[in-house]
Amino acid sequence: MADNKPFQWPVRVYYEDTDAQGVVYYANYFRFLERTRTEWLRTLGVDMVALAENERRIFVVAEIQTKFHAPARLSDELIVTARLTNLSRVAFDIEQNIYRDNIDGELLISSHVKAAYLDADTMRPKRMPSSLFGEHRS
Amino acid sequence: MADNKPFQWPVRVYYEDTDAQGVVYYANYFRFLERTRTEWLRTLGVDMVALAENERRIFVVAEIQTKFHAPARLSDELIVTARLTNLSRVAFDIEQNIYRDNIDGELLISSHVKAAYLDADTMRPKRMPSSLFGEHRS
Amino acid sequence: MADNKPFQWPVRVYYEDTDAQGVVYYANYFRFLERTRTEWLRTLGVDMVALAENERRIFVVAEIQTKFHAPARLSDELIVTARLTNLSRVAFDIEQNIYRDNIDGELLISSHVKAAYLDADTMRPKRMPSSLFGEHRS
Amino acid sequence: MADNKPFQWPVRVYYEDTDAQGVVYYANYFRFLERTRTEWLRTLGVDMVALAENERRIFVVAEIQTKFHAPARLSDELIVTARLTNLSRVAFDIEQNIYRDNIDGELLISSHVKAAYLDADTMRPKRMPSSLFGEHRS
Repeated sequence: MADNKPFQWPVRVYYEDTDAQGVVYYANYFRFLERTRTEWLRTLGVDMVALAENERRIFVVAEIQTKFHAPARLSDELIVTARLTNLSRVAFDIEQNIYRDNIDGELLISSHVKAAYLDADTMRPKRMPSSLFGEHRS
Repeated sequence: MADNKPFQWPVRVYYEDTDAQGVVYYANYFRFLERTRTEWLRTLGVDMVALAENERRIFVVAEIQTKFHAPARLSDELIVTARLTNLSRVAFDIEQNIYRDNIDGELLISSHVKAAYLDADTMRPKRMPSSLFGEHRS
Repeated sequence: MADNKPFQWPVRVYYEDTDAQGVVYYANYFRFLERTRTEWLRTLGVDMVALAENERRIFVVAEIQTKFHAPARLSDELIVTARLTNLSRVAFDIEQNIYRDNIDGELLISSHVKAAYLDADTMRPKRMPSSLFGEHRS
Repeated sequence: MADNKPFQWPVRVYYEDTDAQGVVYYANYFRFLERTRTEWLRTLGVDMVALAENERRIFVVAEIQTKFHAPARLSDELIVTARLTNLSRVAFDIEQNIYRDNIDGELLISSHVKAAYLDADTMRPKRMPSSLFGEHRS
């Protein structure tokens, strides 16, 4: 599982993302990471809206470790990645990086994210159906 | 009703509020306006959380006209105002301004906001109970 | 000038854009409008980063009137438009709408925006060079 | 240094902070943490605006590890803490937690933050003057 190719998602930096230091505000990288997780899940066939409305199940970030190597700037084109590194019954771990321009470009952000599968009403962990991430199970 | 004194709420400008132009990002003034409406409603005894959960009623902005006179900067202390200018059965109009330092300071933002009272599920207008804004009715 | 076709830009709604009412938070539509103005200017050949760094010139919103007709929801695909309606020496007016799905879809937001061309250091109006918006001048 | 009492800063949760899951959007906790670092630095006599403008020095987050224990909700009153755990010539480490209601309330977020002192133009590490954090040096 560790050598699967990362999912990639492009992000353009707008004024809304920057701050008075002239670079992307640190909390906004977490928005880019979440957009990319959402699009990665969409490619896996996970419809988070239907999941929340019909099954009352949501994904939430339980832990995240992040290193900020270099700043992104206004108008930069970024590539954000997501790569599954571990999958349990109630959570998954992914590695997410942000690069300038493309995946061979400068590494700006590296992170490890643990996301849990919860009941939306009780916020308690729930077992993920085997149909989720089906192709990644061994 | 037009000469009631405005409600005032202080806002400190943090990095999160600014952008690469070195000033507050224009959309973020609308966050300051909404915080102030929330606090103004709280002083009137309106508990928006209870209203949403128990009555399924929410306030939403229906219209807003805004002029940006001068920019706020990192670390500025702002005063945001709210003053009721009109009240109907299903909506209220308020005037909201943002000043630097205090209400006699530089005028940065002036706005007129129409907020509607809706059913949270159908998003259709609902009649406000007379207990809301009771003291302002004539 | 009034019958020029609007520029269109797609926006996907993510969790970051929504609030506890289950819809897009009202201030975030202004982020969508600004992304679209940026992309519209880019198609006109305006490089805002170079403009700010080399010429110390920036565009800022001076006025905006906005009507919120219907809410956008998580995962919606939106189309945001920009259409020039007036051009003076130091400012331009544009009409910007947000539709669900496509330009023939439900109208969610309508707005009129006046943007001014300023010196980035003094924040005072400056005359736009005729090369900007060249093709729109008559 | 490890048993110094944490700095505390109150934060009220508004609609702007929440998302369609009905709780605070995960990236927004990082805004709360940064507000608190700013206020903590202010109490230590660090004026970040003067530092950036006069000395071209800024603080940036280099690393952050965060655990999300339980969600904050609309209208919650939170207490955010900051406690210095390590200080080098070019960086400091702090522990930051977020509690519901007060510091004896439910722990929602725990984090460890490494912040670096940089030249604002080159984004390279700079030695912090001994006057910064003077009272914490042994």
